[in-house]
Amino acid sequence: MAKKVAVLLSGCGVYDGSEIYEAVLTLLRLDQSGAEYQCVAPNGDMMHVINHTNGEEMSEARNIMVEASRLARGDIADLATVNVDDFDAVIVPGGFGAAKNLCDFAVKGSDMSVRKDVLSFIQSFHQAEKPAGLMCIAPVMVPQIFGGGAVCTIGTDPNVSEEIKTMGGEHQDRGVDDVCIDEANKLVTTPAYMLATGINEASRGVFTLVDKVLGMIKK
Amino acid sequence: MAKKVAVLLSGCGVYDGSEIYEAVLTLLRLDQSGAEYQCVAPNGDMMHVINHTNGEEMSEARNIMVEASRLARGDIADLATVNVDDFDAVIVPGGFGAAKNLCDFAVKGSDMSVRKDVLSFIQSFHQAEKPAGLMCIAPVMVPQIFGGGAVCTIGTDPNVSEEIKTMGGEHQDRGVDDVCIDEANKLVTTPAYMLATGINEASRGVFTLVDKVLGMIKK
Repeated sequence: MAKKVAVLLSGCGVYDGSEIYEAVLTLLRLDQSGAEYQCVAPNGDMMHVINHTNGEEMSEARNIMVEASRLARGDIADLATVNVDDFDAVIVPGGFGAAKNLCDFAVKGSDMSVRKDVLSFIQSFHQAEKPAGLMCIAPVMVPQIFGGGAVCTIGTDPNVSEEIKTMGGEHQDRGVDDVCIDEANKLVTTPAYMLATGINEASRGVFTLVDKVLGMIKK
Repeated sequence: MAKKVAVLLSGCGVYDGSEIYEAVLTLLRLDQSGAEYQCVAPNGDMMHVINHTNGEEMSEARNIMVEASRLARGDIADLATVNVDDFDAVIVPGGFGAAKNLCDFAVKGSDMSVRKDVLSFIQSFHQAEKPAGLMCIAPVMVPQIFGGGAVCTIGTDPNVSEEIKTMGGEHQDRGVDDVCIDEANKLVTTPAYMLATGINEASRGVFTLVDKVLGMIKK
Protein backbone atom coordinates (compact mmCIF):
# COMPACT_ATOMS: atom_id res chain seq x y z
CA MET A 1 0.00 0.00 0.00
CA ALA A 2 1.16 3.50 -0.84
CA LYS A 3 2.27 5.82 1.93
CA LYS A 4 -0.32 8.53 2.54
CA VAL A 5 0.58 12.02 3.70
CA ALA A 6 -1.63 14.85 4.98
CA VAL A 7 -0.44 18.22 3.69
CA LEU A 8 -1.71 20.92 6.04
CA LEU A 9 -2.33 24.21 4.23
CA SER A 10 -3.08 27.69 5.58
CA GLY A 11 -4.43 29.53 2.51
CA CYS A 12 -2.92 30.27 -0.89
CA GLY A 13 -0.20 32.91 -1.17
CA VAL A 14 2.97 33.67 0.78
CA TYR A 15 1.83 36.84 2.58
CA ASP A 16 -1.46 35.57 4.05
CA GLY A 17 -1.53 31.83 3.35
CA SER A 18 0.63 28.87 2.37
CA GLU A 19 3.76 29.66 0.36
CA ILE A 20 2.63 28.36 -3.03
CA TYR A 21 5.98 27.05 -4.29
CA GLU A 22 6.68 25.16 -1.02
CA ALA A 23 3.24 23.57 -1.17
CA VAL A 24 3.45 22.61 -4.86
CA LEU A 25 7.02 21.30 -4.56
CA THR A 26 5.86 19.15 -1.62
CA LEU A 27 3.02 17.65 -3.68
CA LEU A 28 5.33 17.14 -6.67
CA ARG A 29 7.90 15.25 -4.63
CA LEU A 30 5.24 13.12 -2.92
CA ASP A 31 3.73 12.18 -6.29
CA GLN A 32 7.19 11.54 -7.80
CA SER A 33 7.87 9.20 -4.86
CA GLY A 34 4.70 7.18 -5.36
CA ALA A 35 3.14 8.48 -2.14
CA GLU A 36 -0.48 9.58 -1.96
CA TYR A 37 -1.51 12.84 -0.37
CA GLN A 38 -4.54 14.70 0.87
CA CYS A 39 -4.52 18.47 1.30
CA VAL A 40 -6.17 19.54 4.55
CA ALA A 41 -6.94 22.97 6.02
CA PRO A 42 -8.81 24.54 8.92
CA ASN A 43 -12.28 25.75 7.95
CA GLY A 44 -12.05 29.23 9.45
CA ASP A 45 -11.31 32.86 8.68
CA MET A 46 -7.92 33.97 7.48
CA MET A 47 -6.31 36.58 9.78
CA HIS A 48 -6.52 39.02 6.87
CA VAL A 49 -6.11 39.27 3.10
CA ILE A 50 -2.95 40.83 1.66
CA ASN A 51 -2.69 42.37 -1.81
CA HIS A 52 0.47 40.58 -2.94
CA THR A 53 1.39 43.33 -5.42
CA ASN A 54 2.00 45.91 -2.68
CA GLY A 55 1.77 44.17 0.70
CA GLU A 56 -1.28 46.16 1.79
CA GLU A 57 -4.23 44.69 3.65
CA MET A 58 -7.43 44.39 1.59
CA SER A 59 -10.86 45.09 3.10
CA GLU A 60 -12.31 41.66 2.56
CA ALA A 61 -12.60 38.34 4.39
CA ARG A 62 -11.55 34.96 3.04
CA ASN A 63 -11.75 31.42 4.43
CA ILE A 64 -8.52 29.47 5.00
CA MET A 65 -9.86 26.19 3.57
CA VAL A 66 -11.63 27.77 0.59
CA GLU A 67 -8.46 29.60 -0.48
CA ALA A 68 -6.25 26.59 0.27
CA SER A 69 -8.46 24.49 -2.01
CA ARG A 70 -7.02 26.48 -4.96
CA LEU A 71 -3.70 24.78 -4.18
CA ALA A 72 -5.42 21.39 -4.23
CA ARG A 73 -7.40 21.81 -7.46
CA GLY A 74 -10.50 21.66 -5.26
CA ASP A 75 -9.62 18.42 -3.48
CA ILE A 76 -9.31 19.67 0.09
CA ALA A 77 -10.44 18.10 3.36
CA ASP A 78 -11.79 20.06 6.32
CA LEU A 79 -9.39 19.63 9.23
CA ALA A 80 -12.41 19.08 11.50
CA THR A 81 -13.42 15.94 9.61
CA VAL A 82 -10.13 14.14 8.92
CA ASN A 83 -8.87 11.15 10.86
CA VAL A 84 -5.17 10.86 11.62
CA ASP A 85 -5.53 7.06 11.36
CA ASP A 86 -5.91 7.51 7.59
CA PHE A 87 -2.43 9.01 7.24
CA ASP A 88 1.17 7.94 7.73
CA ALA A 89 2.69 11.41 8.10
CA VAL A 90 1.93 15.12 8.03
CA ILE A 91 3.77 17.93 6.21
CA VAL A 92 3.19 21.64 6.80
CA PRO A 93 4.44 24.10 4.15
CA GLY A 94 5.31 27.62 5.30
CA GLY A 95 4.29 31.09 4.20
CA PHE A 96 2.89 33.76 6.52
CA GLY A 97 -0.33 31.75 6.67
CA ALA A 98 1.45 29.27 8.94
CA ALA A 99 2.23 32.14 11.34
CA LYS A 100 -1.10 33.96 10.91
CA ASN A 101 -3.75 31.28 10.38
CA LEU A 102 -2.34 28.08 11.94
CA CYS A 103 -0.99 30.00 14.94
CA ASP A 104 -0.62 33.70 15.82
CA PHE A 105 3.17 33.94 15.91
CA ALA A 106 3.12 36.77 13.35
CA VAL A 107 1.41 39.08 15.84
CA LYS A 108 2.31 37.63 19.24
CA GLY A 109 5.80 36.20 18.82
CA SER A 110 6.70 33.81 21.65
CA ASP A 111 3.35 34.58 23.37
CA MET A 112 1.67 32.80 20.47
CA SER A 113 -0.86 29.97 20.56
CA VAL A 114 -1.33 27.24 17.99
CA ARG A 115 -4.95 26.87 16.74
CA LYS A 116 -6.54 24.12 18.84
CA ASP A 117 -7.50 21.94 15.85
CA VAL A 118 -4.01 22.28 14.35
CA LEU A 119 -2.35 21.50 17.70
CA SER A 120 -4.51 18.44 18.24
CA PHE A 121 -4.07 17.22 14.62
CA ILE A 122 -0.26 17.34 14.56
CA GLN A 123 0.03 16.07 18.15
CA SER A 124 -2.01 13.02 17.15
CA PHE A 125 0.65 12.15 14.56
CA HIS A 126 3.33 12.64 17.21
CA GLN A 127 1.52 10.43 19.72
CA ALA A 128 1.08 7.73 17.07
CA GLU A 129 4.83 7.92 16.34
CA LYS A 130 4.15 9.06 12.80
CA PRO A 131 6.61 11.55 11.26
CA ALA A 132 6.01 15.25 10.68
CA GLY A 133 7.75 17.72 8.38
CA LEU A 134 7.48 21.49 8.87
CA MET A 135 9.12 24.05 6.63
CA CYS A 136 9.93 27.76 6.48
CA ILE A 137 8.28 29.64 9.42
CA ALA A 138 5.99 26.71 10.38
CA PRO A 139 8.57 25.30 12.89
CA VAL A 140 7.73 28.16 15.31
CA MET A 141 4.88 25.83 16.29
CA VAL A 142 7.30 23.03 17.24
CA PRO A 143 7.77 23.84 20.97
CA GLN A 144 4.01 23.94 21.66
CA ILE A 145 3.24 20.88 19.55
CA PHE A 146 6.20 18.63 20.39
CA GLY A 147 7.07 19.96 23.85
CA GLY A 148 10.26 21.37 25.34
CA GLY A 149 13.54 20.20 23.89
CA ALA A 150 12.25 19.34 20.41
CA VAL A 151 14.89 20.31 17.85
CA CYS A 152 14.09 22.29 14.71
CA THR A 153 15.36 24.88 12.23
CA ILE A 154 13.90 27.96 10.59
CA GLY A 155 17.23 28.67 8.91
CA THR A 156 19.51 31.29 10.44
CA ASP A 157 17.23 34.18 11.51
CA PRO A 158 18.45 35.15 15.02
CA ASN A 159 15.19 36.76 16.15
CA VAL A 160 12.91 33.89 15.17
CA SER A 161 15.30 31.25 16.51
CA GLU A 162 15.48 33.19 19.80
CA GLU A 163 11.67 33.16 20.04
CA ILE A 164 11.70 29.38 19.51
CA LYS A 165 14.19 29.03 22.39
CA THR A 166 12.03 31.32 24.58
CA MET A 167 9.13 28.90 23.99
CA GLY A 168 11.33 25.98 25.15
CA GLY A 169 12.39 24.65 21.76
CA GLU A 170 15.90 23.92 20.58
CA HIS A 171 16.99 25.64 17.37
CA GLN A 172 19.82 24.63 15.06
CA ASP A 173 20.95 26.82 12.16
CA ARG A 174 20.66 25.18 8.75
CA GLY A 175 21.34 26.25 5.17
CA VAL A 176 18.66 26.36 2.49
CA ASP A 177 19.61 22.94 1.06
CA ASP A 178 19.64 21.27 4.42
CA VAL A 179 17.17 19.80 6.90
CA CYS A 180 17.19 19.46 10.69
CA ILE A 181 16.23 16.02 11.92
CA ASP A 182 14.95 15.29 15.42
CA GLU A 183 14.94 11.49 15.34
CA ALA A 184 13.35 11.07 18.79
CA ASN A 185 10.36 13.19 17.75
CA LYS A 186 10.31 11.96 14.13
CA LEU A 187 10.42 15.62 13.15
CA VAL A 188 12.02 17.08 10.01
CA THR A 189 12.33 20.84 9.39
CA THR A 190 13.92 22.92 6.61
CA PRO A 191 14.33 26.69 6.03
CA ALA A 192 12.80 26.83 2.49
CA TYR A 193 11.78 30.46 1.78
CA MET A 194 13.15 31.68 5.12
CA LEU A 195 16.40 31.57 3.10
CA ALA A 196 15.69 30.59 -0.51
CA THR A 197 16.36 33.16 -3.21
CA GLY A 198 14.73 31.16 -6.01
CA ILE A 199 12.38 28.26 -6.62
CA ASN A 200 15.08 25.80 -7.69
CA GLU A 201 17.06 26.54 -4.54
CA ALA A 202 13.89 26.11 -2.46
CA SER A 203 13.13 22.80 -4.14
CA ARG A 204 16.29 21.14 -2.84
CA GLY A 205 15.45 21.56 0.86
CA VAL A 206 11.76 20.81 0.30
CA PHE A 207 12.52 17.62 -1.68
CA THR A 208 14.98 16.48 1.01
CA LEU A 209 12.37 17.10 3.72
CA VAL A 210 9.78 15.04 1.84
CA ASP A 211 12.30 12.24 1.26
CA LYS A 212 13.27 12.16 4.95
CA VAL A 213 9.64 12.18 6.14
CA LEU A 214 8.73 9.34 3.75
CA GLY A 215 11.81 7.44 4.90
CA MET A 216 10.63 7.61 8.53
CA ILE A 217 7.30 5.91 7.72
CA LYS A 218 7.29 2.30 8.92
CA LYS A 219 5.45 0.40 6.18
CA MET B 1 23.39 36.72 -20.72
CA ALA B 2 20.60 34.56 -19.36
CA LYS B 3 17.52 33.88 -21.45
CA LYS B 4 14.54 35.81 -20.13
CA VAL B 5 10.99 34.53 -20.37
CA ALA B 6 7.67 36.29 -19.74
CA VAL B 7 5.18 34.00 -18.00
CA LEU B 8 1.67 35.28 -18.69
CA LEU B 9 -0.73 34.50 -15.84
CA SER B 10 -4.52 34.79 -15.61
CA GLY B 11 -5.17 34.62 -11.86
CA CYS B 12 -4.40 31.97 -9.25
CA GLY B 13 -6.43 28.76 -9.21
CA VAL B 14 -7.54 26.28 -11.86
CA TYR B 15 -11.26 27.16 -11.97
CA ASP B 16 -11.00 30.94 -12.40
CA GLY B 17 -7.31 31.68 -12.96
CA SER B 18 -3.99 30.08 -13.87
CA GLU B 19 -3.63 26.38 -13.08
CA ILE B 20 -1.25 26.64 -10.11
CA TYR B 21 0.79 23.48 -10.73
CA GLU B 22 1.33 24.31 -14.42
CA ALA B 23 2.50 27.82 -13.48
CA VAL B 24 4.81 26.67 -10.68
CA LEU B 25 6.27 23.80 -12.71
CA THR B 26 7.00 26.30 -15.50
CA LEU B 27 8.86 28.61 -13.10
CA LEU B 28 10.72 25.66 -11.55
CA ARG B 29 11.94 24.41 -14.91
CA LEU B 30 12.97 27.89 -16.05
CA ASP B 31 14.96 28.42 -12.85
CA GLN B 32 16.49 24.92 -13.07
CA SER B 33 17.59 25.78 -16.63
CA GLY B 34 19.29 29.01 -15.61
CA ALA B 35 16.72 31.15 -17.41
CA GLU B 36 15.27 34.29 -15.83
CA TYR B 37 11.56 34.95 -15.77
CA GLN B 38 9.05 37.69 -15.10
CA CYS B 39 5.44 36.92 -14.30
CA VAL B 40 3.04 39.22 -16.15
CA ALA B 41 -0.75 39.58 -16.03
CA PRO B 42 -3.51 41.86 -17.33
CA ASN B 43 -4.60 44.46 -14.77
CA GLY B 44 -8.33 43.90 -15.05
CA ASP B 45 -11.31 42.12 -13.51
CA MET B 46 -11.51 38.35 -13.41
CA MET B 47 -14.62 37.00 -15.19
CA HIS B 48 -15.77 35.68 -11.81
CA VAL B 49 -14.52 34.05 -8.63
CA ILE B 50 -15.07 30.33 -8.08
CA ASN B 51 -15.13 28.62 -4.68
CA HIS B 52 -12.72 25.77 -5.48
CA THR B 53 -14.21 23.49 -2.81
CA ASN B 54 -17.57 23.19 -4.60
CA GLY B 55 -17.29 24.89 -7.99
CA GLU B 56 -19.85 27.58 -7.13
CA GLU B 57 -19.51 31.23 -8.09
CA MET B 58 -18.76 33.57 -5.17
CA SER B 59 -20.36 37.03 -4.95
CA GLU B 60 -17.14 39.00 -5.02
CA ALA B 61 -14.82 40.62 -7.55
CA ARG B 62 -11.09 40.03 -7.86
CA ASN B 63 -8.40 41.50 -10.12
CA ILE B 64 -6.49 39.18 -12.46
CA MET B 65 -3.08 40.73 -11.75
CA VAL B 66 -3.57 41.04 -7.99
CA GLU B 67 -4.51 37.36 -7.69
CA ALA B 68 -1.80 36.26 -10.14
CA SER B 69 0.77 38.06 -7.99
CA ARG B 70 0.23 35.34 -5.36
CA LEU B 71 1.82 32.93 -7.84
CA ALA B 72 4.77 35.31 -8.23
CA ARG B 73 5.43 35.99 -4.52
CA GLY B 74 4.39 39.58 -5.31
CA ASP B 75 6.78 40.10 -8.22
CA ILE B 76 4.30 40.65 -11.03
CA ALA B 77 4.38 43.10 -13.93
CA ASP B 78 1.31 44.83 -15.36
CA LEU B 79 0.84 43.63 -18.93
CA ALA B 80 0.17 47.27 -19.92
CA THR B 81 3.68 48.33 -18.90
CA VAL B 82 5.92 45.51 -20.13
CA ASN B 83 8.06 45.67 -23.25
CA VAL B 84 8.43 42.60 -25.42
CA ASP B 85 11.98 43.74 -26.25
CA ASP B 86 12.96 42.80 -22.69
CA PHE B 87 12.07 39.13 -23.24
CA ASP B 88 13.25 36.22 -25.40
CA ALA B 89 10.08 34.13 -25.19
CA VAL B 90 6.61 33.93 -23.66
CA ILE B 91 4.92 31.01 -21.88
CA VAL B 92 1.22 30.85 -21.00
CA PRO B 93 0.10 28.26 -18.39
CA GLY B 94 -3.46 27.01 -18.60
CA GLY B 95 -6.34 26.78 -16.17
CA PHE B 96 -9.83 28.17 -16.78
CA GLY B 97 -8.38 31.66 -16.32
CA ALA B 98 -6.78 31.32 -19.76
CA ALA B 99 -10.26 30.69 -21.23
CA LYS B 100 -12.11 33.18 -19.00
CA ASN B 101 -9.71 36.08 -18.37
CA LEU B 102 -7.23 36.04 -21.29
CA CYS B 103 -10.00 35.30 -23.80
CA ASP B 104 -13.69 34.36 -23.52
CA PHE B 105 -13.54 30.86 -24.98
CA ALA B 106 -15.17 29.42 -21.83
CA VAL B 107 -18.43 31.24 -22.61
CA LYS B 108 -18.30 31.84 -26.37
CA GLY B 109 -16.46 28.84 -27.80
CA SER B 110 -15.25 29.48 -31.35
CA ASP B 111 -16.96 32.92 -31.31
CA MET B 112 -14.40 33.96 -28.72
CA SER B 113 -12.11 36.99 -28.73
CA VAL B 114 -8.67 37.23 -27.19
CA ARG B 115 -8.22 40.24 -24.85
CA LYS B 116 -6.65 43.00 -26.93
CA ASP B 117 -3.63 43.46 -24.66
CA VAL B 118 -2.99 39.69 -24.59
CA LEU B 119 -3.38 39.42 -28.38
CA SER B 120 -1.01 42.31 -28.99
CA PHE B 121 1.53 41.03 -26.41
CA ILE B 122 1.84 37.49 -27.78
CA GLN B 123 1.68 38.66 -31.40
CA SER B 124 4.65 40.94 -30.73
CA PHE B 125 6.72 37.88 -29.77
CA HIS B 126 5.53 36.15 -32.94
CA GLN B 127 6.41 39.14 -35.13
CA ALA B 128 9.86 39.34 -33.52
CA GLU B 129 10.36 35.61 -34.26
CA LYS B 130 10.58 34.84 -30.56
CA PRO B 131 9.14 31.50 -29.38
CA ALA B 132 5.90 31.00 -27.48
CA GLY B 133 4.69 28.09 -25.36
CA LEU B 134 1.01 27.61 -24.49
CA MET B 135 -0.31 24.77 -22.35
CA CYS B 136 -3.57 23.10 -21.35
CA ILE B 137 -6.59 25.11 -22.66
CA ALA B 138 -4.51 28.21 -23.57
CA PRO B 139 -3.90 26.98 -27.18
CA VAL B 140 -7.55 27.83 -28.03
CA MET B 141 -6.08 31.33 -28.55
CA VAL B 142 -3.61 30.06 -31.18
CA PRO B 143 -5.74 30.63 -34.34
CA GLN B 144 -6.48 34.27 -33.46
CA ILE B 145 -2.94 35.03 -32.31
CA PHE B 146 -0.89 33.12 -34.89
CA GLY B 147 -3.33 33.11 -37.81
CA GLY B 148 -4.86 30.32 -39.86
CA GLY B 149 -2.92 27.12 -40.23
CA ALA B 150 -0.93 27.40 -37.00
CA VAL B 151 -0.56 23.93 -35.47
CA CYS B 152 -1.26 23.20 -31.80
CA THR B 153 -2.56 20.64 -29.33
CA ILE B 154 -4.92 20.73 -26.35
CA GLY B 155 -4.57 16.96 -25.96
CA THR B 156 -7.34 14.75 -27.31
CA ASP B 157 -10.62 16.48 -26.46
CA PRO B 158 -12.73 16.25 -29.66
CA ASN B 159 -14.99 19.23 -28.87
CA VAL B 160 -12.21 21.70 -28.07
CA SER B 161 -10.06 20.54 -30.98
CA GLU B 162 -13.07 20.98 -33.29
CA GLU B 163 -13.52 24.56 -32.04
CA ILE B 164 -9.86 25.25 -32.80
CA LYS B 165 -10.38 23.96 -36.34
CA THR B 166 -13.54 26.10 -36.70
CA MET B 167 -11.40 29.14 -35.87
CA GLY B 168 -8.93 28.19 -38.62
CA GLY B 169 -6.31 26.45 -36.53
CA GLU B 170 -4.83 23.02 -37.07
CA HIS B 171 -5.06 20.59 -34.15
CA GLN B 172 -2.96 17.50 -33.56
CA ASP B 173 -3.74 15.02 -30.78
CA ARG B 174 -0.96 14.59 -28.24
CA GLY B 175 -0.50 12.58 -25.04
CA VAL B 176 0.15 14.17 -21.67
CA ASP B 177 3.93 13.62 -21.88
CA ASP B 178 4.19 15.07 -25.33
CA VAL B 179 4.34 18.48 -27.01
CA CYS B 180 3.19 19.74 -30.41
CA ILE B 181 5.79 21.84 -32.21
CA ASP B 182 4.98 24.29 -34.99
CA GLU B 183 8.51 25.17 -36.11
CA ALA B 184 7.40 27.82 -38.63
CA ASN B 185 5.53 29.74 -35.92
CA LYS B 186 8.06 28.93 -33.14
CA LEU B 187 5.08 27.65 -31.19
CA VAL B 188 5.09 24.83 -28.60
CA THR B 189 1.92 23.46 -26.98
CA THR B 190 1.23 20.63 -24.52
CA PRO B 191 -1.96 19.17 -22.97
CA ALA B 192 -0.90 19.41 -19.29
CA TYR B 193 -4.06 19.28 -17.12
CA MET B 194 -6.32 18.78 -20.15
CA LEU B 195 -5.12 15.18 -19.68
CA ALA B 196 -2.91 14.93 -16.58
CA THR B 197 -4.18 12.86 -13.67
CA GLY B 198 -1.43 13.93 -11.27
CA ILE B 199 1.23 16.57 -10.76
CA ASN B 200 4.18 14.33 -11.64
CA GLU B 201 2.48 13.35 -14.90
CA ALA B 202 1.76 17.03 -15.63
CA SER B 203 5.36 17.96 -14.93
CA ARG B 204 6.74 15.86 -17.80
CA GLY B 205 4.84 17.71 -20.55
CA VAL B 206 5.36 21.10 -18.89
CA PHE B 207 9.12 20.53 -18.48
CA THR B 208 9.40 19.41 -22.12
CA LEU B 209 7.51 22.50 -23.27
CA VAL B 210 9.86 24.77 -21.30
CA ASP B 211 12.91 22.93 -22.66
CA LYS B 212 11.68 23.24 -26.27
CA VAL B 213 10.83 26.94 -25.90
CA LEU B 214 14.25 27.70 -24.37
CA GLY B 215 15.89 25.67 -27.15
CA MET B 216 14.21 27.88 -29.79
CA ILE B 217 15.75 31.07 -28.37
CA LYS B 218 18.62 32.32 -30.53
CA LYS B 219 21.22 33.53 -28.03
